Amino acid sequence: MKRDLVAIQGLSDAALVGLMDLADTLQRDLRAHARELGGFLMGSLFLEPSTRTRLSFEAAMARLGGRIITSADPATSSAVKGETLSDTVRIVGSYVDLVVLRHPAAGAARWAARHASGPVINAGDGAHEHPTQTLCDLYALRRERGRLEGLTVMLYGDLRYGRTTHSLARALVRMGCSIIAVAEDDLELPDFIVSDLVRRPGCVARHIVVDDMEDVFHRRDVRAMAIGPDNMVPSGGESVDEARPFSLKDSAVDAIYVTRLQAERGAGASRALPILDHRFLTSQPFKETIVLHPLPRVTEIAAEIDSDPRAAYFRQAALGVPIRMALLMWASGVYDLPLETAPLYEPESVSGYRCENLSCITRHRTEDVPEEVARSRGDVPRCQWCEEEAGPA
Amino acid sequence: MKRDLVAIQGLSDAALVGLMDLADTLQRDLRAHARELGGFLMGSLFLEPSTRTRLSFEAAMARLGGRIITSADPATSSAVKGETLSDTVRIVGSYVDLVVLRHPAAGAARWAARHASGPVINAGDGAHEHPTQTLCDLYALRRERGRLEGLTVMLYGDLRYGRTTHSLARALVRMGCSIIAVAEDDLELPDFIVSDLVRRPGCVARHIVVDDMEDVFHRRDVRAMAIGPDNMVPSGGESVDEARPFSLKDSAVDAIYVTRLQAERGAGASRALPILDHRFLTSQPFKETIVLHPLPRVTEIAAEIDSDPRAAYFRQAALGVPIRMALLMWASGVYDLPLETAPLYEPESVSGYRCENLSCITRHRTEDVPEEVARSRGDVPRCQWCEEEAGPA
Amino acid sequence: MKRDLVAIQGLSDAALVGLMDLADTLQRDLRAHARELGGFLMGSLFLEPSTRTRLSFEAAMARLGGRIITSADPATSSAVKGETLSDTVRIVGSYVDLVVLRHPAAGAARWAARHASGPVINAGDGAHEHPTQTLCDLYALRRERGRLEGLTVMLYGDLRYGRTTHSLARALVRMGCSIIAVAEDDLELPDFIVSDLVRRPGCVARHIVVDDMEDVFHRRDVRAMAIGPDNMVPSGGESVDEARPFSLKDSAVDAIYVTRLQAERGAGASRALPILDHRFLTSQPFKETIVLHPLPRVTEIAAEIDSDPRAAYFRQAALGVPIRMALLMWASGVYDLPLETAPLYEPESVSGYRCENLSCITRHRTEDVPEEVARSRGDVPRCQWCEEEAGPA
Repeated sequence: MKRDLVAIQGLSDAALVGLMDLADTLQRDLRAHARELGGFLMGSLFLEPSTRTRLSFEAAMARLGGRIITSADPATSSAVKGETLSDTVRIVGSYVDLVVLRHPAAGAARWAARHASGPVINAGDGAHEHPTQTLCDLYALRRERGRLEGLTVMLYGDLRYGRTTHSLARALVRMGCSIIAVAEDDLELPDFIVSDLVRRPGCVARHIVVDDMEDVFHRRDVRAMAIGPDNMVPSGGESVDEARPFSLKDSAVDAIYVTRLQAERGAGASRALPILDHRFLTSQPFKETIVLHPLPRVTEIAAEIDSDPRAAYFRQAALGVPIRMALLMWASGVYDLPLETAPLYEPESVSGYRCENLSCITRHRTEDVPEEVARSRGDVPRCQWCEEEAGPA
Repeated sequence: MKRDLVAIQGLSDAALVGLMDLADTLQRDLRAHARELGGFLMGSLFLEPSTRTRLSFEAAMARLGGRIITSADPATSSAVKGETLSDTVRIVGSYVDLVVLRHPAAGAARWAARHASGPVINAGDGAHEHPTQTLCDLYALRRERGRLEGLTVMLYGDLRYGRTTHSLARALVRMGCSIIAVAEDDLELPDFIVSDLVRRPGCVARHIVVDDMEDVFHRRDVRAMAIGPDNMVPSGGESVDEARPFSLKDSAVDAIYVTRLQAERGAGASRALPILDHRFLTSQPFKETIVLHPLPRVTEIAAEIDSDPRAAYFRQAALGVPIRMALLMWASGVYDLPLETAPLYEPESVSGYRCENLSCITRHRTEDVPEEVARSRGDVPRCQWCEEEAGPA
Repeated sequence: MKRDLVAIQGLSDAALVGLMDLADTLQRDLRAHARELGGFLMGSLFLEPSTRTRLSFEAAMARLGGRIITSADPATSSAVKGETLSDTVRIVGSYVDLVVLRHPAAGAARWAARHASGPVINAGDGAHEHPTQTLCDLYALRRERGRLEGLTVMLYGDLRYGRTTHSLARALVRMGCSIIAVAEDDLELPDFIVSDLVRRPGCVARHIVVDDMEDVFHRRDVRAMAIGPDNMVPSGGESVDEARPFSLKDSAVDAIYVTRLQAERGAGASRALPILDHRFLTSQPFKETIVLHPLPRVTEIAAEIDSDPRAAYFRQAALGVPIRMALLMWASGVYDLPLETAPLYEPESVSGYRCENLSCITRHRTEDVPEEVARSRGDVPRCQWCEEEAGPA
């Protein structure tokens, strides 16, 4: 079977751990692996600009001794001549051994994977998934903390529109972490994510009131929810109204994951997120907290904490290379992982529904992607491509 | 002598066969040749965007273990600072071992080859030539059919403005194929191409009437011409009026080469070409016909035949890599071919004429290219750069 | 210590010579060094377009067997998302072993070097420095003339706004050359450069009148200044009014370094520089003179002298590769040079001053660079980043 990576859910828990273990070995000396993928050729197909992600993938491939061909400028790509993604991927896919794809439409990676002869790795498909960012986030957390199970991770910032936050939340729950999600009113973790998370056996979600909120966050307008194994999550309420008071000060937060306001994906552009600065980090619960951020940051982390040893975001960015090296070794077939891939949604097609996501690949101007809606056990009908809830046809 | 490839005519028949033979060897295991061009450096100079061609060349060089430096964005190139192509090629040419050049002006490759210290390979110069596309087309035909001599190839679509069709027609006749050119009234193969083709000893061109046209093409508004060795071409007439009826149904078409409407090179943009679809391929003469297309396609081939085993265009695109590998090995001097290059036009300069092609490199704003018009035996005076017929000075 | 190259002054005289000696060895067979930097990875970060410089660096790295990741399109870079240069350099710097940086703001390279974990090589930072161009110019002069000490070099053209001319003038004086600077009235070498040059022990600067100016330059509107060791410089005057007549005809000019009008950096765009052509080179003092130019040229050198053996500018461009190879070997730590780096300005901070250069990195919209003004012995207060004279705060 082709070793695609479309979504983080395509990797089993054991595979996630296996990739991080391999990355640990690789990162000890990044220059020592220049023969691992000698003779392999990667196609770096960025149909939407994302310099950082592209450079990280290309650095990973170069470190492994592989070669790279790059198409990074959407304005000069074949799509401009009206070519479909499926044609592009079939053709460029036939030149190379594997394709790394970035695309503005949700579901594009799954559609591309169906047409390429070799593996396709999703480097971000619209608001849908960016699985290697999640791998990097998770791996950074494990390296900084030495383990994942039992950690308490605070998600802070724009939790509504931040794709990376959604994927990370899912991965954290799978790895046995508990989450404290803190956000302003209309930037909270969406309901569909929360209901996904609690479907995992033993995982609960409770609204809580941080009663020392002003001491901790220096503001009063944020809401909190705790998600994780029953015994790790403070008692709270099912709904916001039932939320129970809880003192963060008695708690230890192992990491705080900050995200920028996703202005380009719909959040109000004129609004500023609170700034994480020295004062913030002096609060009791953050004394030992490492700070993670998928970067680029805008203003949500003050430059003054860059030199603080708890500021881990630049170390985190650097780890994008070894974890992608591990992924490329697996995808290229030179390294095996325990996969036991369980598809998130069973292939039970349902009719009478249609995808309503205007950013889905099924709506993309150049494509003619068949709409397919399916429902897995107990779940709502979802588009097979972008995985958004479908509406009545 | 420098091993430039400016036009397909620069390669002898034996050299064409030699390249295809070498490509056959290379494509058996594309990953097995990573030492062939170790230490060689290719300059990939795309002064007009063409992602597909660029990636195919770069994949070929990477597969051979060579290195690549790329300038793919015309907007950031030195030409913007007012530098001439000749200066660019002299300078970048001095950094590398060979240059692959794409340029919007006809004749640019020949002009560049005169100034570069190393070989220049033409990756498309305006409406003039795109010889490696022709190599790829020819090679795909040979691989699909096992041979070239004696094949019947139908050219279908925009035969007037399609540069690749013109070059392929010339190459097919040289390889002993016969051609059936089918097109709408004003998209027919231009006279100057036909008169070139029949200059080859034993080659004739005849207008024919396909009397089962409606059965075969499901339309009545196309015209046909047959070109090839006298014994392979059905009897017909010298002019359209003398065209004689001929039943395609009794014929076997080995391949059909479809091209898109070259909107950007002048053909009416609003008009749609007929669509090659399942119904088309059920006609008797196409039962065993493979379908080729230089890609990208727009609408002229229906997606429904992509999975038909006769649809060979994606296999064709993939073969662009091994045939370019073969070419790069020859150009780099590590592999020899029987060349006996016979220049198409003898260097007999004539005065009193000037090039009238507004897209010729002699008219390009940054250049100061001397106009040179020459005539070869029995031929009309032509521009030495773009090879278009010259007019009175 | 990190092996950055921010400015040509960061390399001692012995280091300059050492790099040129190494380049001499490397250029004998450019294809023979593909193992020198195997396993090394270079980040080619061009936040301002400069195709030629980028290709030269990338060719150098490729020739040494190293790998490259490239960000060459400012429009798709992370800076567009509002990321600061310091963040970009910290992140991309963590992916690679060394960074080559081009940036539109003066002082950007020094600022970047402070944040990258590995070496940063300045590939041009605004009007401040472009040290590898100077290395290339110097190296070309040495290869063409066989030595540097005692040479007489004429600088001709736009001496006021040409960054490369300023750096070269400094390097020439350090290497024991004498300079004859010839320019129109308002394109003369700026005073601050001249006062820098004569600070070197034994170096003097004198205004001279070339009394055979019309014979030599075919014009009368240029001014001349001679700079160099006392015994090599003709007697002249301190000020323009005291300039004494001097016959160039009795002199031998070893090289003439021509620069184009730096329209984009402020010089009057509508004005044309005189053209260096055959007639120019027939003058007695230029009989044996080689012609250098940093390229691209616009009209200041006529194409008719390209084939003259004295036209050395294309050979000069080609030498950009071996000299950058030498530099990359040093920066990567596989080759040692006698450094004894003497910082140009001692780190004696002064207050009451501020940088007034609107193109300085301290003014760049995305950055928050601390203003730092310092004064070295006997010098005026200067910005630590762009090295321009500071003004009162």
